[in-house]
Amino acid sequence: MEELKEECGVFGIYDQNDNLDVSRLVFFALYALQHRGQESCGIAVSTNNEITSHKDMGLVSEVFNNQILGSLKGRIGIGHVRYSTAGASNCLNAQPIVVNYKGGMMAIAHNGNLVNAEALRRDMSDTGSIFVADADTELVIKIVSKHLVANQNHEIALEKTMQELSGSYAMVLLLPGKLVGVRDPNGIRPLCIGKLKKSYVLSSESCAFSTIGAEFVRDVLPGEIITIDEDGLHSYQTKTPDRSAMCIFEYVYFARPDSYIDGASVHQARFEAGKRLAIEHPVEADLVIGVPDSALSAALGYSQQSGIPYGHGLIRNRYIGRTFIQPTQSLRDMSVRIKFSVLQNAIEGKRIVLLDDSIVRGTTTRIIVQMLKDAGAKEVHMRISSAPVKFPCYYGIDIASASQLIASKLSVEQICQMIGADSLGYLSLLGMLQTPVGIKGGLCDACFTGKYCVQE
Amino acid sequence: MEELKEECGVFGIYDQNDNLDVSRLVFFALYALQHRGQESCGIAVSTNNEITSHKDMGLVSEVFNNQILGSLKGRIGIGHVRYSTAGASNCLNAQPIVVNYKGGMMAIAHNGNLVNAEALRRDMSDTGSIFVADADTELVIKIVSKHLVANQNHEIALEKTMQELSGSYAMVLLLPGKLVGVRDPNGIRPLCIGKLKKSYVLSSESCAFSTIGAEFVRDVLPGEIITIDEDGLHSYQTKTPDRSAMCIFEYVYFARPDSYIDGASVHQARFEAGKRLAIEHPVEADLVIGVPDSALSAALGYSQQSGIPYGHGLIRNRYIGRTFIQPTQSLRDMSVRIKFSVLQNAIEGKRIVLLDDSIVRGTTTRIIVQMLKDAGAKEVHMRISSAPVKFPCYYGIDIASASQLIASKLSVEQICQMIGADSLGYLSLLGMLQTPVGIKGGLCDACFTGKYCVQE
Amino acid sequence: MEELKEECGVFGIYDQNDNLDVSRLVFFALYALQHRGQESCGIAVSTNNEITSHKDMGLVSEVFNNQILGSLKGRIGIGHVRYSTAGASNCLNAQPIVVNYKGGMMAIAHNGNLVNAEALRRDMSDTGSIFVADADTELVIKIVSKHLVANQNHEIALEKTMQELSGSYAMVLLLPGKLVGVRDPNGIRPLCIGKLKKSYVLSSESCAFSTIGAEFVRDVLPGEIITIDEDGLHSYQTKTPDRSAMCIFEYVYFARPDSYIDGASVHQARFEAGKRLAIEHPVEADLVIGVPDSALSAALGYSQQSGIPYGHGLIRNRYIGRTFIQPTQSLRDMSVRIKFSVLQNAIEGKRIVLLDDSIVRGTTTRIIVQMLKDAGAKEVHMRISSAPVKFPCYYGIDIASASQLIASKLSVEQICQMIGADSLGYLSLLGMLQTPVGIKGGLCDACFTGKYCVQE
Amino acid sequence: MEELKEECGVFGIYDQNDNLDVSRLVFFALYALQHRGQESCGIAVSTNNEITSHKDMGLVSEVFNNQILGSLKGRIGIGHVRYSTAGASNCLNAQPIVVNYKGGMMAIAHNGNLVNAEALRRDMSDTGSIFVADADTELVIKIVSKHLVANQNHEIALEKTMQELSGSYAMVLLLPGKLVGVRDPNGIRPLCIGKLKKSYVLSSESCAFSTIGAEFVRDVLPGEIITIDEDGLHSYQTKTPDRSAMCIFEYVYFARPDSYIDGASVHQARFEAGKRLAIEHPVEADLVIGVPDSALSAALGYSQQSGIPYGHGLIRNRYIGRTFIQPTQSLRDMSVRIKFSVLQNAIEGKRIVLLDDSIVRGTTTRIIVQMLKDAGAKEVHMRISSAPVKFPCYYGIDIASASQLIASKLSVEQICQMIGADSLGYLSLLGMLQTPVGIKGGLCDACFTGKYCVQE
Repeated sequence: MEELKEECGVFGIYDQNDNLDVSRLVFFALYALQHRGQESCGIAVSTNNEITSHKDMGLVSEVFNNQILGSLKGRIGIGHVRYSTAGASNCLNAQPIVVNYKGGMMAIAHNGNLVNAEALRRDMSDTGSIFVADADTELVIKIVSKHLVANQNHEIALEKTMQELSGSYAMVLLLPGKLVGVRDPNGIRPLCIGKLKKSYVLSSESCAFSTIGAEFVRDVLPGEIITIDEDGLHSYQTKTPDRSAMCIFEYVYFARPDSYIDGASVHQARFEAGKRLAIEHPVEADLVIGVPDSALSAALGYSQQSGIPYGHGLIRNRYIGRTFIQPTQSLRDMSVRIKFSVLQNAIEGKRIVLLDDSIVRGTTTRIIVQMLKDAGAKEVHMRISSAPVKFPCYYGIDIASASQLIASKLSVEQICQMIGADSLGYLSLLGMLQTPVGIKGGLCDACFTGKYCVQE
Repeated sequence: MEELKEECGVFGIYDQNDNLDVSRLVFFALYALQHRGQESCGIAVSTNNEITSHKDMGLVSEVFNNQILGSLKGRIGIGHVRYSTAGASNCLNAQPIVVNYKGGMMAIAHNGNLVNAEALRRDMSDTGSIFVADADTELVIKIVSKHLVANQNHEIALEKTMQELSGSYAMVLLLPGKLVGVRDPNGIRPLCIGKLKKSYVLSSESCAFSTIGAEFVRDVLPGEIITIDEDGLHSYQTKTPDRSAMCIFEYVYFARPDSYIDGASVHQARFEAGKRLAIEHPVEADLVIGVPDSALSAALGYSQQSGIPYGHGLIRNRYIGRTFIQPTQSLRDMSVRIKFSVLQNAIEGKRIVLLDDSIVRGTTTRIIVQMLKDAGAKEVHMRISSAPVKFPCYYGIDIASASQLIASKLSVEQICQMIGADSLGYLSLLGMLQTPVGIKGGLCDACFTGKYCVQE
Repeated sequence: MEELKEECGVFGIYDQNDNLDVSRLVFFALYALQHRGQESCGIAVSTNNEITSHKDMGLVSEVFNNQILGSLKGRIGIGHVRYSTAGASNCLNAQPIVVNYKGGMMAIAHNGNLVNAEALRRDMSDTGSIFVADADTELVIKIVSKHLVANQNHEIALEKTMQELSGSYAMVLLLPGKLVGVRDPNGIRPLCIGKLKKSYVLSSESCAFSTIGAEFVRDVLPGEIITIDEDGLHSYQTKTPDRSAMCIFEYVYFARPDSYIDGASVHQARFEAGKRLAIEHPVEADLVIGVPDSALSAALGYSQQSGIPYGHGLIRNRYIGRTFIQPTQSLRDMSVRIKFSVLQNAIEGKRIVLLDDSIVRGTTTRIIVQMLKDAGAKEVHMRISSAPVKFPCYYGIDIASASQLIASKLSVEQICQMIGADSLGYLSLLGMLQTPVGIKGGLCDACFTGKYCVQE
Repeated sequence: MEELKEECGVFGIYDQNDNLDVSRLVFFALYALQHRGQESCGIAVSTNNEITSHKDMGLVSEVFNNQILGSLKGRIGIGHVRYSTAGASNCLNAQPIVVNYKGGMMAIAHNGNLVNAEALRRDMSDTGSIFVADADTELVIKIVSKHLVANQNHEIALEKTMQELSGSYAMVLLLPGKLVGVRDPNGIRPLCIGKLKKSYVLSSESCAFSTIGAEFVRDVLPGEIITIDEDGLHSYQTKTPDRSAMCIFEYVYFARPDSYIDGASVHQARFEAGKRLAIEHPVEADLVIGVPDSALSAALGYSQQSGIPYGHGLIRNRYIGRTFIQPTQSLRDMSVRIKFSVLQNAIEGKRIVLLDDSIVRGTTTRIIVQMLKDAGAKEVHMRISSAPVKFPCYYGIDIASASQLIASKLSVEQICQMIGADSLGYLSLLGMLQTPVGIKGGLCDACFTGKYCVQE
């Protein structure tokens, strides 16, 4: 689909006398989480209570080098990749945030979005507090500090912090002598536990575990506080709502297909959605293709269910880079044309089923359909492996306002006409709920339904 | 397969009163050719005989920005992306090379490798010539200049130049008032002609045409000199050997699948090789997967021929970046593990046919097979969609010496054991020749056979 | 003398409908204050309560360019150049610091050093406060914010802030709709008021006024709060000690000679000290020279009083740059030899009186004396235009500990021998007090006497 | 005076088993020559015939760091600082130029300007030669290579090269196993020999010797070729005109005052010119000041001769940086006001004699006079320590055309009025010839007289 501003990714590791190269492992893990944020990244490590850190704007491969990694020595490390959901794009908002507090130094890396940030900020300002950056993370660390000073026990301090926060958050904290992971009571954002030799690691997605050779242990539970120290791993469960509300869009688009979230394989979830879509919206056609990379699993599922051969029709350019140069007016659709190219040979004269995971504004989809037709596709049948996105997200996905969402303004028929496809079929919400992930339940589907799990 | 050092890509455009944004079109075309070289890139444009240019180390997205492109104004433009085949990796070797000569200014962008470079260099040094860089291109432009000064007609000058050069070369030249393209008499490297409105363009691969909205016209013929000026396109055919010798590895690995080279679709060539391979080396299995991106087409072909379902099993990380940080000894296989990840869910418990396009040293293949087994694959059957690479290439591909080529030292059985696969099958040379590309003929297959088309 | 870590410089401007280019004027003013700090610099401007800012490590000429200045639009602007006196050398400590507080946004630029910083930090940490950077400025702005929230009137808020702070501080604040300047009750650091057309400006030194074409109005008084808003300039006087304690070292070394501080010309102060020194320590010699740039005024004074001709003997290299490459052991004295060179022709065979403003460690002085002797000086008589520096400074000058101060360990005779001079004379403290600046009084001379004006 | 585009500086060293840190010594020497060029710089060193080099745009302190210097290992080294006199400002023109030729590798660093460059370029182009850059140096190295290939003996090869070149040149060459220095037959540009332990060094100016601890040996003679190899230093004298023609402007403005050129101290030359000027253009005044840095020596001389006290009145800002931001129209004179500031205290109410070395366009002078008057100077009497510059220079000084030279268009009275001075006196040409340097003779004074020593 069109690039959604992605969220953040967090990672943490505590070396349990395994003699690990902590900063390098965080570095490699951030490579595996890079799809969750390409704007800035950072690593903080702790040696004898002193935290050293490095962060900057840019990709993991741009921000770090051997010399920098060599200077980050420590037994505990946390890392972050970021795409701003709240807070402007600047260096002040890069994470981890490292601060001095009464207990020494601490660092935090955070993924999520608070819905009561403004109210919290207002309350704290009333007592004189100042805010350097405009990201939620600064707010969170101030509240954490307040409760850490007031409570000997860090779990109680964090529980009190959680009682003040409304919204989504999955975070890792580097406290003196401890690595701590926290997931919000609804479990909106993912966080999971892995193990490398005797050492525990925490990650937004399990895909980072394979990269560094760690094994998946389990997901952090909604409302759970995980503490890792020299005695090993400890769990502290805070109060949670009856029902969790894991973001369904992680399965639809955000997460890497090789990740497992709350027990479900992301690839499998997409594959099953594709199969279900073939049942709901069958069509006579010659070839099923997907928009790379996120819709390929669904395309495979559609193909398998429908019996229509799967093939490659769109190639994604590997060398786009972050800073794209705006084409002049006469070179309008260039940004899509540079990102994707069509395998004319595979497409020509064929009736194509084109899978994508979602439609946001519809402009990218329109150009891709046109490219396929220009390459000689006889028909293009668009199939979307999720329901129409009609409502904004307040928990971290950058779907800013309903007015930008084509499905909130146009009917399916109108969208089909606008994107120039021969037919258009969305997987129904009911269909989504009949896939294994849907049946499992405990999902936040507010972007499809408008039913929000957390309110300010 | 393991990353081969790739070659270079060239592009040229002559604005036939279409009022084109020449430098920006070259820029976008270089994006589409970026897979042919990520080390350095450059653009040279000409306005009233004066050439302005910009080149640097880095990706197209890193080297250019709006301001630089805005300063490159002209009616004729050429561009280059480079991976060094000859010449050290430094800024002096970046192209296009721009020089002053008797006739004014000229620029050249060149893809290929001369086998008589040393002899030519020696001859010219004997008369006092100096060389700033160590790339072939400096040599070529000196010879071009010599003949241009001696001959009024630039086609005769270039024909005489070509008589001095042995090896592979496809190049574009920016001469006063003209854009010129030249392909070596054996046609080892590709070069083709496209058209955008009334304006002609030249490109290493046709994939750049789609990006900028140009149409494919035809390939430049072996030994052909194409001149584009205000009167349009002119062809001048020099003497060629009886048989052309287009590099077969362009089809196997280098070119982008959406390109057409000498009349054949690269995707189709790989797909057919995959089908042929399924006939030569059938196996009972549950899933066919390919190493992304170059082996996906062959995997589809193998699946279609064999009836074994096609699936995704390996994901390629999109955010590797160019400057990779070497892992420490204890993190040995990290470079492969960061580049690829396994879809455990799709692999687990299955007998896998794993397609790749070739094996060079075998180390990457070994790690990938291991990763699949670690993820629970019951069997891994390796299938290579080309014959064993046993001989070095002297025409531009960085297969430096036979001793680095595992197939020149080990038998197929030994390689199979070394990479840890349950079986290993290479497409036979005969099989390659029975695919449409093979039947078409006119290929250089020296890396498989040791029969070189050009000698010093 | 040997490079003392210099302090910071601050600047502010409020455009009183003069249609000024505010950010560019701050930029040019910072050029004039660059001698007060070369480590980092920054500018913050305010437009409709929104503050935009830019700061980075580096010189003014490196940190800003036309594009950045063009993006800093506003009616009120403040700027800062910094050499760290407290706080490590990193980007987090660069100023101005810009924060959101209850009242909107504010920014602060600060020169000075608090002696009770640690105690304040401890107190605030006890209530949960966190600190991102380790500079005093973060502390100050938190206290300012606290009092601004509690007090409608910003002058009262600042007065209460001042009651909490002990030490030296001269600062400018950008509050909503206001530019504010504050000088500590002892007046340790300088701050003065200028006027450009109808608009008021504030600056650490008056030399910035000439650069931007402003006129000197008066010094900010110790303990005075200056507010500039659309109604013009307002003064609010807080309680001060009986006696001010302006840093005498500003006259001796820090300030630019064309500045006027608290009514005295810096050049004149040095010139008179040189004259007085000639009375206290006369010598028979052929030539008076000074170590450039800070001792040239004193050398002129010594020459005029003694009748010994003034000349040039040492040249200062204009192109040193900030990041000096450490010579290897065998190239030991290189850093001094690169910075200064000797006019052998002017020196040879002569008895030289060499003026410097002070001696800290003595190493630079020793090498300079040696260079003069190597160039053929018959005698070198060292004359120091201030008293021996024996005590550390707690108010902002980087004279870290008594043990580094040669005069706290050795007698004048021993120092003379150590630096290899033929004689050595310091201006006596009494002598300093008999110069016009000394007579004027109200100076902090703790580095000479150990009598500190402010204690924690 | 107004900044003249300065020329280049060259340096060379041959380690005669002294175990020197060659690249670091070249680096420190370039610091001392930085005043001769701030645009680009470079170092080339040779180890076993292989030359390694590094060059870039920027100051010595910006282009080199410890890592780069560490990678430049060798026994022989040459270096260059550049301000373009011919050739555009870009990286291609940076020096040393390093090339491969028949004999191996060689490198060249060159200061000067050829008057027959265009003719030479034309001749070489006629035989097919190409030129990458547009600086003379590329031309020179091609001719050197041609003769080195044709002649066993490098001295004969260089002599033949010199016979082809017309104009000014002082250069150092790094040939296999040798360091070579060459000065043009008129000796227009300076070049001198020093010795560090047993090792010889070559430098544009002797000031670099003091920096690295070398001793001045002698000047290279006009037309002399100096070769330094493992047998020591060899001289080869080529034919020269009867009379040498050392550039008089080196004494007036370019050279550093602590340098000795052709037997004369630069400081002394300026001092004597100032004395002579006081005789030719006496005036009643209270204070003599000079425009820093180049006119300070002359101001001292004027003061001593006239008996009027010498003082400081103008301070030069040490932190200008290379990339100056253009002020807006309303901040017109800013570039001068940032560079210089006035010591009002020293100037106020006084009649000032203001010394400068020359006037080119007159704009800077006009602003400085205005600044002095604004600061309260009662009278400003301008005195110029050289004759009026009326003719362009073809040998390397960037006095492009007569039309830019105010003295070629206006009378002295008119200039005086234009710059707003109360009186203006230039040192007469006769006066210049009566100073010791003038009496010594052998000078090129074409910029004053229009009598050029070399013609194309």
